[in-house]
Amino acid sequence: MAEGGGFTTQAAGASDHEAVELGIGMLGYAFMGKAHSNAFLTIPHMMYPPAAIPKLVGIAGRNETSVKEAAKRFGYQNAYTDWRDMLANDAVQVFDNGGPNNVHAEPSIAAAEAGKHVFCEKPLGRTAEESLKMLEAVEKAGVKHMVAFNYRFVPAIVQARRLIETGALGRIFHYRAIYLQEWIIDPKFPMIWRLDKDQAGSGALGDLGAHVIDLARYLIGEPTRVMGMTKTFVPERPTGDGTGTAKVTVDDAFISLMEFENGAIGTIEASRFAQGRKNHQVLEINGEKGSIKFNLERMNELEVFWVDDKPNTTQGFHNVLISEPYHPYWEHWWPQGHMIGWEHTFVHEFDHFFRAIVNDEPVDPYGATFLDGYRNAVICDAILESASSGKAVDIKYAK
Amino acid sequence: MAEGGGFTTQAAGASDHEAVELGIGMLGYAFMGKAHSNAFLTIPHMMYPPAAIPKLVGIAGRNETSVKEAAKRFGYQNAYTDWRDMLANDAVQVFDNGGPNNVHAEPSIAAAEAGKHVFCEKPLGRTAEESLKMLEAVEKAGVKHMVAFNYRFVPAIVQARRLIETGALGRIFHYRAIYLQEWIIDPKFPMIWRLDKDQAGSGALGDLGAHVIDLARYLIGEPTRVMGMTKTFVPERPTGDGTGTAKVTVDDAFISLMEFENGAIGTIEASRFAQGRKNHQVLEINGEKGSIKFNLERMNELEVFWVDDKPNTTQGFHNVLISEPYHPYWEHWWPQGHMIGWEHTFVHEFDHFFRAIVNDEPVDPYGATFLDGYRNAVICDAILESASSGKAVDIKYAK
Amino acid sequence: MAEGGGFTTQAAGASDHEAVELGIGMLGYAFMGKAHSNAFLTIPHMMYPPAAIPKLVGIAGRNETSVKEAAKRFGYQNAYTDWRDMLANDAVQVFDNGGPNNVHAEPSIAAAEAGKHVFCEKPLGRTAEESLKMLEAVEKAGVKHMVAFNYRFVPAIVQARRLIETGALGRIFHYRAIYLQEWIIDPKFPMIWRLDKDQAGSGALGDLGAHVIDLARYLIGEPTRVMGMTKTFVPERPTGDGTGTAKVTVDDAFISLMEFENGAIGTIEASRFAQGRKNHQVLEINGEKGSIKFNLERMNELEVFWVDDKPNTTQGFHNVLISEPYHPYWEHWWPQGHMIGWEHTFVHEFDHFFRAIVNDEPVDPYGATFLDGYRNAVICDAILESASSGKAVDIKYAK
Amino acid sequence: MAEGGGFTTQAAGASDHEAVELGIGMLGYAFMGKAHSNAFLTIPHMMYPPAAIPKLVGIAGRNETSVKEAAKRFGYQNAYTDWRDMLANDAVQVFDNGGPNNVHAEPSIAAAEAGKHVFCEKPLGRTAEESLKMLEAVEKAGVKHMVAFNYRFVPAIVQARRLIETGALGRIFHYRAIYLQEWIIDPKFPMIWRLDKDQAGSGALGDLGAHVIDLARYLIGEPTRVMGMTKTFVPERPTGDGTGTAKVTVDDAFISLMEFENGAIGTIEASRFAQGRKNHQVLEINGEKGSIKFNLERMNELEVFWVDDKPNTTQGFHNVLISEPYHPYWEHWWPQGHMIGWEHTFVHEFDHFFRAIVNDEPVDPYGATFLDGYRNAVICDAILESASSGKAVDIKYAK
Repeated sequence: MAEGGGFTTQAAGASDHEAVELGIGMLGYAFMGKAHSNAFLTIPHMMYPPAAIPKLVGIAGRNETSVKEAAKRFGYQNAYTDWRDMLANDAVQVFDNGGPNNVHAEPSIAAAEAGKHVFCEKPLGRTAEESLKMLEAVEKAGVKHMVAFNYRFVPAIVQARRLIETGALGRIFHYRAIYLQEWIIDPKFPMIWRLDKDQAGSGALGDLGAHVIDLARYLIGEPTRVMGMTKTFVPERPTGDGTGTAKVTVDDAFISLMEFENGAIGTIEASRFAQGRKNHQVLEINGEKGSIKFNLERMNELEVFWVDDKPNTTQGFHNVLISEPYHPYWEHWWPQGHMIGWEHTFVHEFDHFFRAIVNDEPVDPYGATFLDGYRNAVICDAILESASSGKAVDIKYAK
Repeated sequence: MAEGGGFTTQAAGASDHEAVELGIGMLGYAFMGKAHSNAFLTIPHMMYPPAAIPKLVGIAGRNETSVKEAAKRFGYQNAYTDWRDMLANDAVQVFDNGGPNNVHAEPSIAAAEAGKHVFCEKPLGRTAEESLKMLEAVEKAGVKHMVAFNYRFVPAIVQARRLIETGALGRIFHYRAIYLQEWIIDPKFPMIWRLDKDQAGSGALGDLGAHVIDLARYLIGEPTRVMGMTKTFVPERPTGDGTGTAKVTVDDAFISLMEFENGAIGTIEASRFAQGRKNHQVLEINGEKGSIKFNLERMNELEVFWVDDKPNTTQGFHNVLISEPYHPYWEHWWPQGHMIGWEHTFVHEFDHFFRAIVNDEPVDPYGATFLDGYRNAVICDAILESASSGKAVDIKYAK
Repeated sequence: MAEGGGFTTQAAGASDHEAVELGIGMLGYAFMGKAHSNAFLTIPHMMYPPAAIPKLVGIAGRNETSVKEAAKRFGYQNAYTDWRDMLANDAVQVFDNGGPNNVHAEPSIAAAEAGKHVFCEKPLGRTAEESLKMLEAVEKAGVKHMVAFNYRFVPAIVQARRLIETGALGRIFHYRAIYLQEWIIDPKFPMIWRLDKDQAGSGALGDLGAHVIDLARYLIGEPTRVMGMTKTFVPERPTGDGTGTAKVTVDDAFISLMEFENGAIGTIEASRFAQGRKNHQVLEINGEKGSIKFNLERMNELEVFWVDDKPNTTQGFHNVLISEPYHPYWEHWWPQGHMIGWEHTFVHEFDHFFRAIVNDEPVDPYGATFLDGYRNAVICDAILESASSGKAVDIKYAK
Repeated sequence: MAEGGGFTTQAAGASDHEAVELGIGMLGYAFMGKAHSNAFLTIPHMMYPPAAIPKLVGIAGRNETSVKEAAKRFGYQNAYTDWRDMLANDAVQVFDNGGPNNVHAEPSIAAAEAGKHVFCEKPLGRTAEESLKMLEAVEKAGVKHMVAFNYRFVPAIVQARRLIETGALGRIFHYRAIYLQEWIIDPKFPMIWRLDKDQAGSGALGDLGAHVIDLARYLIGEPTRVMGMTKTFVPERPTGDGTGTAKVTVDDAFISLMEFENGAIGTIEASRFAQGRKNHQVLEINGEKGSIKFNLERMNELEVFWVDDKPNTTQGFHNVLISEPYHPYWEHWWPQGHMIGWEHTFVHEFDHFFRAIVNDEPVDPYGATFLDGYRNAVICDAILESASSGKAVDIKYAK
């Protein structure tokens, strides 16, 4: 038997009820298709006893070979090359939209109209306007809706939120967030959909920045005003087919300043041009009574400083290994110090969504709804506007 | 769609063959039962295309309620309260022994005699003598055998092994390993089977030390001589039922020195009395051309120093995020920087074992066989002997 | 004899010349007076053989008791309560202005007019306008001038500059700098001169921000445009004499965005409201071929990433201990790994200034001149203007 | 004025007494001669008001040119090529022995007999026997004596001692210390006195190990039993003059186990063959209520874990920046976060010794006396004996 097994990590005998099944229709089989599907297959035995057992009714995608392969791999009962056909299947109760940004709106709206609960990858729409339409659709349909800001479901982030909402940090002064990657620095890296405004909406902003903007709202509160700059370091790239070049129409990086309703100020930045930074999402929050720092690449750790720590001679940032039974979600996992991975954010997130559906509970404030997706888009648009006009932009929500 | 999705992390269309099924019989439903079962359920879609699909034929354990609950949870077809009944089921092709140390030998030997491939948790037996019998049984039966030294399957450890075996570090001078936990410091922590020599064989030594002794053999080579000291800080503990106290008959901690065949020297230590250390397995290796350091609590990182790094002005330990497509096992997981967890060591380990079975390939040298389990036990026994006699003990293997 | 002494850290027999003496007149005896004086007393034996031996002619300050005590402590020959008297002493060749910001201009200009070389603490003047007058005075007088941006003289920062100026990082994309302290968070912390615009010019901006703005210019190049926000979290504080309250008229924190001539973009922030951050100056630079990170609290370390590191399997940020004989200034100090402290930045800095004087060499580009001090002030003013107007401000230098 | 100067770091007006002068006679002008001399020149203004002002009477060494150069550099009044002549100078009140190990005994004993206070570099003698003679000489002479275990004077180490001696850690279970360097790995590195048993006594053991053995006694208590192994990886080296090779007669590395009187156990190791490790002295102490970790390469930091930290959700190792006014020695230095260096350990150490002399106070327990030096040598000898005999050796002191 392996080390540390003296611990009980899971209450025994906890499941004399039968979990309901929820029929899933999945759009997309690439990165997100894989991550979401893995979550569906993990929930039943790890979020035990589960609120709901996802039943993999169907998966949709444009390439028939690939979608069939994905269906076989993950155990989807049906493979579709048109998401409309999938939505027509009554067994689908939850529509999971993991497609590219330009197919977020239409299928999600159609799903809501068909009475399906809708889970959509982020950013919600390519613009605030598109996102608002999506929000209005799900609200009108009365279905449950969630947008995949999965970093809300990192145990360390949930722990941070709990500390902040119980007032442990006191008044908040600063938010500081960067999200850095490095994968398109080479000018020979080809043009892809993510670099095209029509398909992606924006670049590093919507892809990476949206996450830390969401965490700003989740952890600090609503912003009131932003300033921003954007940069496209490599404005033209070879097309994938080798026949020529195409214009990059999104930001390679952005930097921004933010004021919040509660008086805090923040800096938010994202880039795909940070050599050596693989998935470097780092947050710091400074409050009256303490500070918190988080680094996604060490996602099981949280750094915390308390000004009232006793004795004062040993004050300093605590390196907290978030893995105790009393830490968020950890009653489901392993003994302390036996780390979990990035993919488990999706396990927690879908479990949360399924519980909201089955128990008819609100998705927010711990999960992000389409309202959060819309407001996120308003902020992204404001940053782009400020970058273009050279002026501070006030944040105004229609909802 | 989430960040960084421009990467392909899995070759498409790779599976026109049909994976064979392998019938699993699992003994134990606690910590290891959960970790192994989760691996069985993850392999089919994440080690894709899998060499074999584990078919969960049965699970055995003494408590009928618990074993039935585990069967339901993970999807085992049958629940047994006697492992003998499970072994009698012809559909069981692989016996997975995740029981306490005192039930490692008998069921594993019986399984081998019944022609099942055998996977056994570590330490193999409670003593070298018991381990040798287990080794002889599987060899006689001609079945595949593996002992669960799962840390061989951490990608960073595999990477370290590759660097060492290709000579990148040159001659090895030092091995330095600690494995520290903290969970029994409170004298009121009750007596459990892990603290009883009859049931556990040894304490921190067999539980934690065995892992880093295995990694010593895996990364450095065979030891020739050891010295050791052991300590039981709390020699008597309350019994679990609250009726009295019982004598702790194993080590709470051990420290040891080691000489290796290749001239290297090493220190190896494990303790359950290291306040603040949750699962703190830390290794350092110093060679002629470089050094390597690993910390299990940051299992996706490897620190590496190269004496020939250019320019010399920027020499220093590299903090390597082991998560690139060219790192071990990472073609199966996520884009770089999207970390994996502790549980995935079992996914890799069972996938390795299943491939060995299906393709009739050797389990070693990358996986640990019962030979490794036996030799590990010889070393553990030698440390105990040195601690008792106050003399250095030479390592002598019967096999 | 202590460890590691096999190394020669200092060339023997190197000094058959006699170093000239340079008469110093020091204004200020508090924090900076102490740090500068210690440097004067250290240079002769540690920057050996020294270009010049500082002769401590006089020290000036308003409080007679304190200035006499300082003279005794550090060995100044004369104590003055009026800096004008000190400047009248012909033995003073170098005027070192370590007074509060509102006495930077007048005495420095007077010293220049008296033909003294002038060293002035930062920020140079309280505004760009005041700084420009100081610059014009020293240029007109033809004396050597330097502004105390001492972090240019951290060995790791010099090393970073060398890597960048030799092109090792390639094109620069990002600069990211924070300078965080925590010492005025308590609303009961009294009003001091640093919180008064008339005396200090600005708050965190001129005190902390000026340093990292200087390093931006030193490491990246000239900025062309900024955006900024400022915040005064505690707008009114008790006066030091306990009789009432006074209005805080400077920023407690600022955040800003910057565009550079070379196309890079940057974020720059400073705060005195970052709980747990003692002297947390952290820089990151991302270039085409690599990245660099520096943390003043670990000032002997530099983190460096190279995209061309071989083998690729061990790429990662190097943690470089800047302490080898071939690292900047280290031929003067100790064997590797025997760390130096913050105060030594002044040793290097004054040694640099003295060499410039004695050898009639330029202070720049490695030292900061009054031109650098002036341009720094232009940028600081632009950040304040942007914070006030809500608009991006272009950087325009009169010189 | 530089940042953070709102703090008072030094009590003003504290020195209406006149400090006495203490005449110093220094033996050795290499690494230690430089470090000690720098301390003498720093104490008067930084340990202000000083207990004593060191008067640099003379410096002795074999090479006339070098010793004269050193006298000029540091301001020694006299240069001697024979230490006996220096001891004959009545103005010498304190003899500072910074020579190679084989000239520790004779001059130190002679100095004691001449009534000088004696400060000696470590290890005290080359063996316990030699060290005992030195101890007996200073005791007989009734002079103050100190051995240069300067790491007792790192502020973080003093802080650790305070925490332990006030019981904050409770019962101590573990001590774990390594001291790793890398400077003789190259087999072409020539034979030097440090590699010759006659001159050095031992290798990594006496040079590096002695320091962490001293810290074991300082922080944990007396050891009762040791086991050890030693290794000479490169047994023969070229002579410095290039004419041939010489046999290395000391350990390149040692590893050892230790039991303490108070029931704790420890591992102690030192090596000059740890690639990438510059001056890597790392200690960890695990006690009932907390743990402490220290790394000399980050000497201003201390990591501390408290099991009773509240709330439990943020327990973790504190990274303590030892630089607050209430931390040891920090009332003499700079505002928090403005780091000090390795050389300052000597400033604190000599200040301590001078105060003991001037005020006729004991050097111990915070400073190491010749008794500590002797006991250290007994332990070193026992490790060598165990390495040779393969048996545990009990620690027995004659004093």
